[in-house]
Formats: sequence, structure tokens, C-alpha cells
Amino acid sequence: MIAHLLVALAVLLTAAKLGGVLAARLGQPPVLGELLAGVALGALPALGLHGTEGLARDAVLEALAELGVILLLFEVGLSTRFADLVKVGASAFLVACIGVVVPMALGYGVGAWLLPEASPVAHLFLGAALSATSVGITARVLRDMGRIGSPAGQIVLGAAVIDDVLGLLVLAVMVGLAGGGGGSGVMTVLAWVGAKAVGFLGVALVAGRWAAPRLFAIAARLRGQGVLFTLALVVCFALSWAASAVGLAPIVGAFAAGLVLEGVPFAELSDGAERLEERLTPLAAVLVPLFFVRMGLAVDLGALGTGSLALAGALSVAAILGKQACALAVVTPGVDRLAVGLGMIPRGEVGLIFANIGMSLAPGGRPLLGPGAFAAIVAMVLVTTLVTPPLLRWRMGTAPAAAAGPAPTVRAA
Amino acid sequence: MIAHLLVALAVLLTAAKLGGVLAARLGQPPVLGELLAGVALGALPALGLHGTEGLARDAVLEALAELGVILLLFEVGLSTRFADLVKVGASAFLVACIGVVVPMALGYGVGAWLLPEASPVAHLFLGAALSATSVGITARVLRDMGRIGSPAGQIVLGAAVIDDVLGLLVLAVMVGLAGGGGGSGVMTVLAWVGAKAVGFLGVALVAGRWAAPRLFAIAARLRGQGVLFTLALVVCFALSWAASAVGLAPIVGAFAAGLVLEGVPFAELSDGAERLEERLTPLAAVLVPLFFVRMGLAVDLGALGTGSLALAGALSVAAILGKQACALAVVTPGVDRLAVGLGMIPRGEVGLIFANIGMSLAPGGRPLLGPGAFAAIVAMVLVTTLVTPPLLRWRMGTAPAAAAGPAPTVRAA
Repeated sequence: MIAHLLVALAVLLTAAKLGGVLAARLGQPPVLGELLAGVALGALPALGLHGTEGLARDAVLEALAELGVILLLFEVGLSTRFADLVKVGASAFLVACIGVVVPMALGYGVGAWLLPEASPVAHLFLGAALSATSVGITARVLRDMGRIGSPAGQIVLGAAVIDDVLGLLVLAVMVGLAGGGGGSGVMTVLAWVGAKAVGFLGVALVAGRWAAPRLFAIAARLRGQGVLFTLALVVCFALSWAASAVGLAPIVGAFAAGLVLEGVPFAELSDGAERLEERLTPLAAVLVPLFFVRMGLAVDLGALGTGSLALAGALSVAAILGKQACALAVVTPGVDRLAVGLGMIPRGEVGLIFANIGMSLAPGGRPLLGPGAFAAIVAMVLVTTLVTPPLLRWRMGTAPAAAAGPAPTVRAA
Repeated sequence: MIAHLLVALAVLLTAAKLGGVLAARLGQPPVLGELLAGVALGALPALGLHGTEGLARDAVLEALAELGVILLLFEVGLSTRFADLVKVGASAFLVACIGVVVPMALGYGVGAWLLPEASPVAHLFLGAALSATSVGITARVLRDMGRIGSPAGQIVLGAAVIDDVLGLLVLAVMVGLAGGGGGSGVMTVLAWVGAKAVGFLGVALVAGRWAAPRLFAIAARLRGQGVLFTLALVVCFALSWAASAVGLAPIVGAFAAGLVLEGVPFAELSDGAERLEERLTPLAAVLVPLFFVRMGLAVDLGALGTGSLALAGALSVAAILGKQACALAVVTPGVDRLAVGLGMIPRGEVGLIFANIGMSLAPGGRPLLGPGAFAAIVAMVLVTTLVTPPLLRWRMGTAPAAAAGPAPTVRAA
């Protein structure tokens, strides 16, 4: 068991690093190289080279990758000033709303056009699968370029969090619609789901930012080596868990944990002995690429061929163009609107969750979504994931490639 | 699944850190506090507080803990000069041999005395369970005290590696004896097992130390961020896997990987940008305590009560005194002989492996070892693990507790 894991880690870390370095050499973000390295590893069995089949399904690797993306969003939260985020709050809220509504409408239209025999609820499911941004890719690209703190970066991050709450609400409505429940039942569920999610964020951010400096001051009096770093990780893991307990993505909790700890003066509390970023970066440097190479590994190129290519193409176009409407929702002056629209493009787990639920629901005895529609949604996730890094780099990347430079640092205190 | 892991990590990291800090406050090594924190967590269900039952069996936590002890021995290998180890080679070899033979003889005697109805092969199994030192605890205590480089520390480390090879040979003989195989069959197996283990170490150390600087020089020409660190981890994981593939403990491979990379000039190759120790320490700081708190968690206090307390006590005394004979085997001048004997005390997985095999073998239709003997061996592992940190600290610890100081650093280049 441990032997299997050791080989898998050696292979995945090597592939991720080679892919990342190669991408950086070609002027592309390292994350694109990691994704493609994963796709290549996943395609080996089809070429007759076996041994990588189990990698995508290994539970320990999956857990390590999940921890990686949680640490990534924690780092991103730590390097985000809460005040800056509040400043762009109105824009982020509007961007999130427009970014959910427009892609849903476009997805509904694509469904009505290409799957006319399916029910309107099925069309709505296709649209819902296009609604939620998956912030991991954008966060990674912005962090690698040192652009997390830019106004456009802040708006995308804020919008992605609100987006996740909206996605939950959409999911509750859709399941209610598909289940044929009465309108009042859906409204009750909706209110409850929304209250839990908004309540979590409110409590975590307001109470957390009040309590964290006090908690860390007490911990600092223990004067134990690594106590503050351990406590920071514990807060990150606890809030990630709490987010998932209220139905949000764990990474939303990790981002909130970063925002909560952003105001804690680590260096001061530990007399300069503990610098959170110095200890967090090496941990993230190992686990984060694991997340992205595994994301590539999960791509089943074979399954894409079986789906409707036209549907996949139309959904991808709808997904990309739909989020460009977000640019219009930016009310903060002096923001690169196109960068916001591009940063909102990636779709991920939430899209796949909708696709899965759409396949499992069969209100009239027939599944809402067939395997072709599912494969098309998977293709849309792949396309939006792969186009974002080069587009963002093209739009925002004026700095030289980070490949040969020092590690990107996190502004922690 | 990820939610469960997040809670478990938050709980285990908090418990480990609190235990470690408390132990340091009391002048004890942090690892003792981590072990006892694990024991306390494991005892909660018996006190009516549920929720920690699954922690000891969680596959992901187990894998993370295994990675932790692998990284610990990798760090220890990196901070060990290969030349120093060769210098104490004769002492280490003699210490390992005496440290296997004397405890085996004492264990055989204890068996013959307290379990007269069992077969002589069963007595030999009891003795064999006392033979192999488990180097994790000693390595951790020495590292925390900054005494890895002391002559006594080097001898214990070298002896522990040889010890693991001897343990494999003893295991091969024992299984042959219990299976009733002919003498020539056992000798063939023995030669093959020994050749594999010695061959692995020889190839890894000689070829590895020749190839590593060349491999890293090529990797450095990629000039990618974090390439050298990733490659170092990949070498560590690959050699740990290779060790387990030839039947050795993965940590022996990790230690060998550290020795192989000890001579690679990381800072020079990366123009000072990459310092291996700076990147490795935070990773180990999270995973290593996880290993020790889980080790404590695996202690089943209830099972100890059911075993023969006299047998447990006699085996523990035999295990501790048996390794003190090692002090006589030190031929290198100017070495703290008592420290060597104390450092060899901890027993671990290998003892439990012998106990398990002894329970599963039933040559005459009756298991060689009953549940009472098994519980006694588990108790012996627990006692030897818990007494070592305070004893080593008493003997070698003249420096102040590491609790409030800076992180222990690894001499990497």
C-alpha cells in the first residue's frame, strides 16, 4: 500500500514538474503543463503503456490532491486583504450574479437547440452545469503571476465565493424542480440552504477575524516550536470542513480561513521566528501540482469521443462567452474588465455535480441527461480549464515567466 | 471523505502539538508528548467519549504518517555525512549483530521460563520479536536535540540499517524453521534475501552517490522553480519504494536517499535559490508528528490488560537489557557507549511482524503464539518506545529544550 503510493507520488511529481517547466519555457503558465502532463499520463494505457490506470482512482492521492487545492486557496486567502475584497464587494456580487444567470440562459438555449427532444428541466440542468466558476485554476495562475492583489483578481476571487453560494441555491431549485416538489417546498429548502451558506461565511469572517488574533496570542504564550503554524493549519482544515458541512466547497472554507488569518501578526507574535508563508509554501509546492496533474489524469479522452461533439462545442462556447458578460457587471472603476471575464471562465466540480445529478434523476422514467450530454459537459470542463491559463497570461502577464525566479511568496502579516 | 480527513487532521495536529509542547515544558522530548497524546486520544472511547475510534484505521492518515516517517529518515540521512558513517562502520556492524543475538537469546529464555508448554520454535519467535531496533524514535529524539552527528548517533543509525537486514535474515530462517522446511531450502532463501538487501544498499549508495550529482546538475539546467526539491523528493520516494521491494523497511530506503543526496551541492546548483532543508522542514514538521501521534493511537490499552502481565514485563526487561550489550560492541574510541545502548532500545513494526507471523503459523495445528503472547509483545513495543526518549534525553541532552528555539535545521549541502 505505501509502496504503491511512493511510486505514484514519484511518477506524478516528476510528470507535474516536467510539464510545468516545459510550459514555462514556452511562455505558458506552469499549471497548463501540469494539466497536460496529467492528460498524457492518463492517455498512456490507450497507447499500450499500462500502469497508470489506478492513479486517477487512488483514494490517498485524491486526498492529498484535495489537501493541495485547500492549501492553495488558503495561501490565496492569506495574500488577500480583507479590506480590498470588501472594496470590490459590489462588483464581485454583480459579477457572480451575471456570471450565473447568463451562462445558464445560454446553456438552456444550447439544450433547446441541440437536444429538442429533452425536457425543459433537462435544458435547465445543462444551463446550471455552466453556472459555477471553479476558482482553483484562476487562483493558481494569478498567484504564479503575482497578480492575486490586482483589482481584477480580487473581483474574481470574491465573485467565485458568492458564485459557490449561488450554485448551491441553483442546485436546491433544480433538485426541487426535477423532483416535482411544490413551489413552497423549494422555497423553504432554498431559504435554508442559502441561510446556512451565508451564515457560515458571515460567522467565519466576522467572528473569525475577531477571535483569530486573540486565539493566536494565547497560542504564542505556549512558546512551542511550530505552534502558530500548526494552529494556522488547524484553522484552515476546520473551516474547510465547516464549509463542506454547510454544503459549500471545502476550498471556500480554506479561502475564508486565509482571510481570517490575514490580519494575524505572526512575525510579531513569534518574535520573528515563525513566518507563515515560509512554512506554507513548501507544503503547497508539493501538494498543489498533485491536484492539477490529477485533474488532467481524470480526463477520459475516450469518453469525449463518444459524446455529441456538436453539443460539447456549443456548451464550451456558451460557457466561455457567457462569463464574458461578467465584464459588464464590474462597477469598480479602473479594473481590467476583460481579465475579470477571462478569470471567471474555468468550470469544474460543480458542473460535474450537476451533470451527475442530471444523469441520476429520471422524473418520467427516463434520465434527464444521457451519457452523450454528460460527456459533453466533461468536455466543456476540460476546454474551459485548458483555455484559461493561456488567456489570463496573455491578458495580465506582463511580468517574465516565474519559472526561473524565486518562489512566489505569500503576504501573511 | 475529505471532510472526515480534515477533521481528523485538525484533531491529530492539535493533539500532537499540545502533547509536544507540554512534554517540552516538562523537560521531556516532544515525541514523548506526541505518543502520549495519541494514547490519550485512543483511550477516549473507553471513557465514553466517542469519535476517535476510526482514526487509527484511516487509510489516508496511515499513508500520511508513513510519508512522515519516511521524510524524517530522509532528513536524518541528509544530515548524516556518509564518511562519518563509514568511519563508525565496524562499531555499527558489531552493535547490530550483538543487538540482534543477545535480545533473541534473552527472549528465548523468557519464553522457555514463562511459556514452558510452548515449543522451542515459539520461544525463538518471542526472541526474534525482540531483535530489531525501530530507529524512528531514536532518530527523532537525536534530531530534536541536534545530536544526529554525534559518534553515538552515527553508530545507532548505521546499526539500525544493518539491524534491518539482519532482521530480514532472521525472519527468513524463522519462517523456514516453523514451516519445517529442510536446512538447504532455508539456506537458499537466506542467501537470496540477504543478497537482495545488501545488493540494494550497495547499489543505492555506491551508484546513487555517483549518479546523484550528475542527475541534479542536469536537472538544474532546466532552471525551473522547485525542480531540485521535487527531484530530491522523487529520489527519496523511489529509493523508499525500492527498499520495500527488496523486503527492507521503506525508511531504510529513505535514509539511503538522504545519504545519497548528502553530497549534492543544492545551493551551488541553484545559485543559492533552493535550500533543500528550508523546503523539507515544513513538510516534515506537519507529517512527522502525525506518525508519532498515530503510533500512540494504535496502542490498545484494553488488549494489554488481557495479556500475561508477567510475560509483558519480562519481555520488556529482556528487550531493554538485551540492547545494553550493544555498548560492549562499540570499538570506536571516544563514544558514549551507554548512549548507543539506550538508542538501540526502541522496538516497533518488525517486532509486531514477528508476533503476527507467530500467531498465524500453526505447525502442529496449534498457533505458535497465543493472543496473550501477542499482547505481551505489543506491550514490550510500547514500553521500549516510551522509555527511550526520556532516557536518551537524560544521557545526551545537555542543550536546553528545543521547544522555544528555532526549527532544527538539516545540514543539506
